[in-house]
Parts: sequence; C-alpha cells; structure tokens
Amino acid sequence: MNNVLITGATGFIGRNLIYRLKKEGFLVSAIVRPTSDTSTLPKNINMLIHTANSRSLPIFIKSVKPDVVIHLATLFTATHKTEQITDLINSNITFGTELLDTCAKIGTKNFINVGTHFQNYNQEEYNPASLYAATKQGFEDIIKYYTQVYKMKSLTVKIYDTYGPFDTRRKILTLFKENLASGNLLNMSPGEQKLGLTYIDDVVEGFVKAIKAIQTFKDSEQKCYLVKPKQILTLKQVATTFEDVCGKALNIKWGATPYREREIMEVWDNAPNLLEGIDTLSLNEGLKKMLKAEGII
Amino acid sequence: MNNVLITGATGFIGRNLIYRLKKEGFLVSAIVRPTSDTSTLPKNINMLIHTANSRSLPIFIKSVKPDVVIHLATLFTATHKTEQITDLINSNITFGTELLDTCAKIGTKNFINVGTHFQNYNQEEYNPASLYAATKQGFEDIIKYYTQVYKMKSLTVKIYDTYGPFDTRRKILTLFKENLASGNLLNMSPGEQKLGLTYIDDVVEGFVKAIKAIQTFKDSEQKCYLVKPKQILTLKQVATTFEDVCGKALNIKWGATPYREREIMEVWDNAPNLLEGIDTLSLNEGLKKMLKAEGII
Repeated sequence: MNNVLITGATGFIGRNLIYRLKKEGFLVSAIVRPTSDTSTLPKNINMLIHTANSRSLPIFIKSVKPDVVIHLATLFTATHKTEQITDLINSNITFGTELLDTCAKIGTKNFINVGTHFQNYNQEEYNPASLYAATKQGFEDIIKYYTQVYKMKSLTVKIYDTYGPFDTRRKILTLFKENLASGNLLNMSPGEQKLGLTYIDDVVEGFVKAIKAIQTFKDSEQKCYLVKPKQILTLKQVATTFEDVCGKALNIKWGATPYREREIMEVWDNAPNLLEGIDTLSLNEGLKKMLKAEGII
Repeated sequence: MNNVLITGATGFIGRNLIYRLKKEGFLVSAIVRPTSDTSTLPKNINMLIHTANSRSLPIFIKSVKPDVVIHLATLFTATHKTEQITDLINSNITFGTELLDTCAKIGTKNFINVGTHFQNYNQEEYNPASLYAATKQGFEDIIKYYTQVYKMKSLTVKIYDTYGPFDTRRKILTLFKENLASGNLLNMSPGEQKLGLTYIDDVVEGFVKAIKAIQTFKDSEQKCYLVKPKQILTLKQVATTFEDVCGKALNIKWGATPYREREIMEVWDNAPNLLEGIDTLSLNEGLKKMLKAEGII
C-alpha cells in the first residue's frame, strides 16, 4: 500500500496531504487540471495534467498502477446556477466514474472518496443541502456498482470544514481575517449554526488513517468515516475563539442577515471517526498555529 | 393536469404514450434529439429538437409551462465500455438535472421518472446490475434535492421489460422472430431467469395511472411504483408461450451459453403496482396481438 494516486492534488487538502505522504515514504502520483497552479507541489512527483475527455487518463493510471486512489478532486458550490449543472456533474460524477472504471480494469482495488455532511441535512442518512451534495451522493451510487462488480473497496471520508495556514479559499476565517484588518462592519446570520472546523494537519492525519483502514476492508465493502475535530462549535463560538487568539474584537453584527436556505444547524456524525483516540487540536490551538504561520499574531 | 411534456418521445414507449395521451385530450409537448426519427409522432404536437448544452431547453419549457413532465429519455447499455461513460452520465443524469432545474424554477411541480429493476439486483433495495442502473439511482438522488428544496413531487415508474408491435429495439422477442424465420440454431443460457414482459398498451396505461397518482402526492414526496404485468415468467416459459402462439417450434439450444454476469434471476417487486386491479394482458394474449399486428401469424 505504498503507491498512492491523488486527484485534486493542488487543492488545500491535496497539497498538504502530498507533503505528508512523501515524508512518510509513499510513492505519490497526482492528476491535476491544466488550469491548476502546480508550483506549490513537490517537484519529484509523477503528474498527469488532465483535460476532460482526453485519452491520457487510462494510460497514465496504467503506468502508475496505484495501490490506492485518493479522489479529492471536486467542484464545490454552496448554491448553483443552471449553467453550472454540467460542470458540477462532470467534475463530481463523470470524472470519478472514469477513474473508477480504469481502476477496476487495471486491478486497483482501493478507492478513497470524499463526501460531505451536506449530504446529511437535518441529520438524515440522505437529504442533500445542495445540488453539490446530491452529486456527491449520486457518485456513491456509482461507487457501489464498482465495489460490487469488481470487488473493489471504497472508503468515503466525510469532512466538515477545514482550515489552516495559507488556505486561499474564501471561507469564514478569511472573512474574520479581513474584518480584523479593515475594522468594517461584518453582517452575519444569528450565528447559532454548528461548525466542525478541522485543522489541516488533523485532516491529513485522517487520510493517512483512511489508507490504513481501507486495508482491513473485505472485498466489495463500501463504508463512510468521519474526520471529526476535537470541538464542534457554533459560528458565534468560533468568532469568540478567534477574538481570544488575536486579542482583538471583530466588528460583527449578529443576526443582520438570515440563515442560508437549508443551513446546517447541527452536524451529522453517524459514522466512525478516523481520528478516534488521536489528540487533535482545539480551535484555539489551531487558530494560533495558523495565525502565527501567516504572521498575523 | 392536462399539459404534459415528454422526453424520449420517439422511443417505443414515448410514441405509444403520446398517441394515447392525445386520444385522451392531453396537450402534449415533446423534447427529442436531433438524430431521432420523428416521422412516427403525431404532426400536431409542440416539439423541441434538443442538442446538449443548447440554451433552448429552458426557453422551450418556459413557453410550454407543463403541469407534469414524463422523463422517458434514457441511454440504455446492458454492459458498458469506458468510452460510453460520458454519454451514459450526460443522458441519464445531466440532461434530467437540467430538466428538473428548469421545472423547479418555472414552478412545474410534477416529475415522472423512469427507473429499472436493474437497480435492485439480488432483490436488494439498491444494488446495481449495471453502470446504467447506477446512473438511474444517481439521478434519483438528484431528484431528492429538487423535491426537498422546491417542494416538487416525483414518481419513479419501474418497468421490467416492454414489448409490442413494431418495436425496433433488439430484444429477446426479436431474436425469437428471427429464429422463427431463419430456423438457425439459437444458443441461449439455461433460461431460468424470470422476466416481466409487459405489453405496450399496459405500460402506457401505467403512465396514465402515474399522472393520476402523482396528483395525490404531498409536497416533496418522492415515491417509486411498478408497472407489473399479469405474469412473471422464466425465459424458457416465454419461449414456450411464443411457440404456442406461433404454432411452430423455435430452434433453441438451452444452456449453450452461460448466464450474463449479474443476471437478474428473480425480479424485484417491493413497490406498489400502478396496474393494480387492472385486467392486463397475459403473455399469450399480448404475443398474439403483436404477431397479428405485424402479420407474422
């Protein structure tokens, strides 16, 4: 289980995971899009620049013959426009299916997939908070075909939310950092929704554990695991922790905007935790680490 | 509930359904592909020739403002090649999602979808016999998003297998008709797999009932119904019935080939039957009707 192929390699989780896997001696290959910035990846990895519908995918995967695929590539939209449907389905279903199909045919048996608790609105086993979440669920139905017919093994990692140094995605902590710098008023919802902010090192640890866990799977097994942080906090508590760590107050007006439609108020956690028994970071510790690394505190 | 929009209108079920709906006074619109032969459709229906990614779909649907959509369009493959994955997903997931999205936005609340008992291999609630079946299941996950968020209603009709006069698809009865004409030896599997051959008029009746049933649905309801024929017979029994009706023997070597991988031996029937209480045709009656119409007997 030393030969790992990663999609979505240039994303925030992807690049952090690759450095960790290289450090542990894994042989790492990556599939990236032509538009992705690969400058942050290690130089000595085997890489395919993949364009949709190109024939290079099976050729590359056959040459790599990975023991395990970690499929991080995804297109996320909180809400979607009609024009985004094709891209959403191509990215979140079609590409993964082509990947699975090739794995099945060359005998790569282990497929680590990424899900979202947005698939579990209202804490239900399946109720999508967004079309994005529905495409993730649809892809799990496709995985079932490959696990059943080709006796593959598949582990879906569900992550709540991730943070860490030099994350370029526009997320809640980005807004807080901007607010700290500008001092402008930030209008927010009432802030009682629960968040599972997970520090990137803990997320990466979760994927390393996933590689171990999938080795214990039986043929055709398809299972979901969580990467759970130490604390599940409300958005308001996250803001307070951020203020504590910075020693400065944020300028937030709580309740100025309504909750998003289908806002997740309580996180779903009806799956085993890959970080069980591991001493993960509290939000206070994680924020300190991040803000220090970024030179903010 | 008088204004019906049909996709897959030129298919075997589509064209038969359209004639029936027209006869009953429905206003019928149809979406067809540029490659489809529309010569068998009634002349006086509202039709969109749809190419993928064209912008005409929402414009057409907005102009039609259907009360109910019957989504028959599908790409069927018993087994698939890697190169077919994009087409399978585009046809069976992406197109339907665009359709749902437009319906949601213009306020068309009723969506009749078509499933397959290939989604229920081994008589399980979900275990796909083929990638085709997995794409059908994936699409039901997408439907869930639209029913939940836009309070739409969706009824999935599961059909076993259909037959009737002038069906151009290559199916088991086509092989029997060819065998009758040529007398050549036909090599078959052992023939103990159960089939739910349903006469086209009964299938069409099922869809008419589906239009009635969906009107009783509550907001956000998503439910599956079967169109069940009078008899579920083994392939061998189907052959015997065919011979009885024709008064001639087929030249079949049973057991000459193995069963297909993931052959459905027993049909799944864990859903209410839209044809409950209706006097449907026995296979003997249906075959007689078909073979007479075609001038074979």
